[in-house]
Amino acid sequence: MKLSPLGDKVVLKQLEAEETTKSGLILTSQSKEKPQEAIVVAVGPGGMVGDTKVEMVLKEGDRVIFSRYGAMEIKFDGEEYLVMRQNDILAVVKD
Amino acid sequence: MKLSPLGDKVVLKQLEAEETTKSGLILTSQSKEKPQEAIVVAVGPGGMVGDTKVEMVLKEGDRVIFSRYGAMEIKFDGEEYLVMRQNDILAVVKD
Amino acid sequence: MKLSPLGDKVVLKQLEAEETTKSGLILTSQSKEKPQEAIVVAVGPGGMVGDTKVEMVLKEGDRVIFSRYGAMEIKFDGEEYLVMRQNDILAVVKD
Amino acid sequence: MKLSPLGDKVVLKQLEAEETTKSGLILTSQSKEKPQEAIVVAVGPGGMVGDTKVEMVLKEGDRVIFSRYGAMEIKFDGEEYLVMRQNDILAVVKD
Amino acid sequence: MKLSPLGDKVVLKQLEAEETTKSGLILTSQSKEKPQEAIVVAVGPGGMVGDTKVEMVLKEGDRVIFSRYGAMEIKFDGEEYLVMRQNDILAVVKD
Amino acid sequence: MKLSPLGDKVVLKQLEAEETTKSGLILTSQSKEKPQEAIVVAVGPGGMVGDTKVEMVLKEGDRVIFSRYGAMEIKFDGEEYLVMRQNDILAVVKD
Amino acid sequence: MKLSPLGDKVVLKQLEAEETTKSGLILTSQSKEKPQEAIVVAVGPGGMVGDTKVEMVLKEGDRVIFSRYGAMEIKFDGEEYLVMRQNDILAVVKD
Repeated sequence: MKLSPLGDKVVLKQLEAEETTKSGLILTSQSKEKPQEAIVVAVGPGGMVGDTKVEMVLKEGDRVIFSRYGAMEIKFDGEEYLVMRQNDILAVVKD
Repeated sequence: MKLSPLGDKVVLKQLEAEETTKSGLILTSQSKEKPQEAIVVAVGPGGMVGDTKVEMVLKEGDRVIFSRYGAMEIKFDGEEYLVMRQNDILAVVKD
Repeated sequence: MKLSPLGDKVVLKQLEAEETTKSGLILTSQSKEKPQEAIVVAVGPGGMVGDTKVEMVLKEGDRVIFSRYGAMEIKFDGEEYLVMRQNDILAVVKD
Repeated sequence: MKLSPLGDKVVLKQLEAEETTKSGLILTSQSKEKPQEAIVVAVGPGGMVGDTKVEMVLKEGDRVIFSRYGAMEIKFDGEEYLVMRQNDILAVVKD
Repeated sequence: MKLSPLGDKVVLKQLEAEETTKSGLILTSQSKEKPQEAIVVAVGPGGMVGDTKVEMVLKEGDRVIFSRYGAMEIKFDGEEYLVMRQNDILAVVKD
Repeated sequence: MKLSPLGDKVVLKQLEAEETTKSGLILTSQSKEKPQEAIVVAVGPGGMVGDTKVEMVLKEGDRVIFSRYGAMEIKFDGEEYLVMRQNDILAVVKD
Repeated sequence: MKLSPLGDKVVLKQLEAEETTKSGLILTSQSKEKPQEAIVVAVGPGGMVGDTKVEMVLKEGDRVIFSRYGAMEIKFDGEEYLVMRQNDILAVVKD
């Protein structure tokens, strides 16, 4: 069972912050601010969206920086994901 | 008697959360948050919507994740439905 | 004397809820929530509306589900009507 | 001295409600809600308005139902008028 | 020294209300509501404004009724003027 | 070191009010309301801005009346400037 | 590891104000207002953005004045950056 986004939408899995403070204390998810990085897990087909032809440049597995503005949270199969339009992705992280 | 949506609109029947808590207690609909999953029950013909030609990609029976933003609740023949534009459907759930 | 709507507008006559409670009590219009169903009583000619060519698909006598958003209430010849653009009609009820 | 509206604008003279209550009492203008009916007194030439070509379908003397939304009140030569775009006219009253 | 408006803008000089009350008292500018009439004192060249070709139909000396919405007040050479787009002029007063 | 604006933007240097009150007192900049006049100090190249081709009609040294709406204040090289789109310039002052 | 912006977006590294007060006191970053100057560190490919073809005129290393409006703050690899559309860059600083 998997998600197939419509149009120019992409599904992201947000990365958890894995930080250790200087004193060695592991921060709980409550006290950490989630970073704006995520992994692309599904990409829509693009094509005509409104009156604009959108070509998808993202692909599954891309590590991206996204804008919280426009991100919609969904829960699917017990997991949390973000769905947004490709245009709300700010940048791809390249090695 | 059935609903025939106009333009790029679709009619959805929202799925009820069927969860059992660890203690075996069945949650009533009052205490459960409705999931954003629904079954498509009717699909508009698409075509020109405003100044955009919309091709419908959804079909009856599709299981979809939708955005609450843009969903309009209606009551028809004693049942509750959601009506929204195809563009407010985030993703189709594929097996 | 009748109403001839402009452009892509339609005139609707809202259906009154005719419900009887289980105890047989007839609900007064005060205590009933008006359903979102209406009968189309007049249809505009369509054509160019803004920069979009609109083809009217509704016709007099159609039973429709409408969105309260965008509905304008008018009083004409002692009767209450709703005027809205065809695009604010969600679906036609088919037998 | 008369008003010549620009573009797709029309000038309306609102109809006063002339009602007599059942007891024969003439309602003063203070206690009556003005109806949304008006007589068209001047019609703009239409043509390009923004990037849209507007064809005027209203003519002087037409009795119309208008939307309060978009209506601008002006006072000219001691009389009150309404100016609005043709698109804010909901319907023409036909005999 | 004079003002040369850009694009589809026009410069107006608002007419002062010259009223005498029934008792013969001249109203001061404080107590009078300024009418929405003005004289056109400068007209922009029109042409492409955004993605629309605007043809100027107003000319210097035209007496117009304007919408307060969109009117910008400026002070130039000790005098107060209004600047607005031609589209915010409601009507020209013809003799 | 100078500023080179992008697209249809222009850089303005606002004129200081140089007024003497009737009693001969020079007003400090605190108590004076800055006039909406400025000198154009840099002009962008124009060209495609969004989906519109913009031709720049302003040039360095032009004295202009501008709309506060849309004006962005910047500090550069110790001096304050305003940056705005050409369309937010209301008029050029001609001798 | 580096950032590759999408569409017409650019990544900026904001310049820190390096000021010494007259008394010789070095201002801490808390008490200083950050200037609106930044260095471009990454530039998107441009191309079709919405229904507009955007040509990128900025390049890495450009020193720019930007509008806070539209700037999105991100943290990447322990450093703070700003991401915005090329259109939110006001001007390039030329030597």
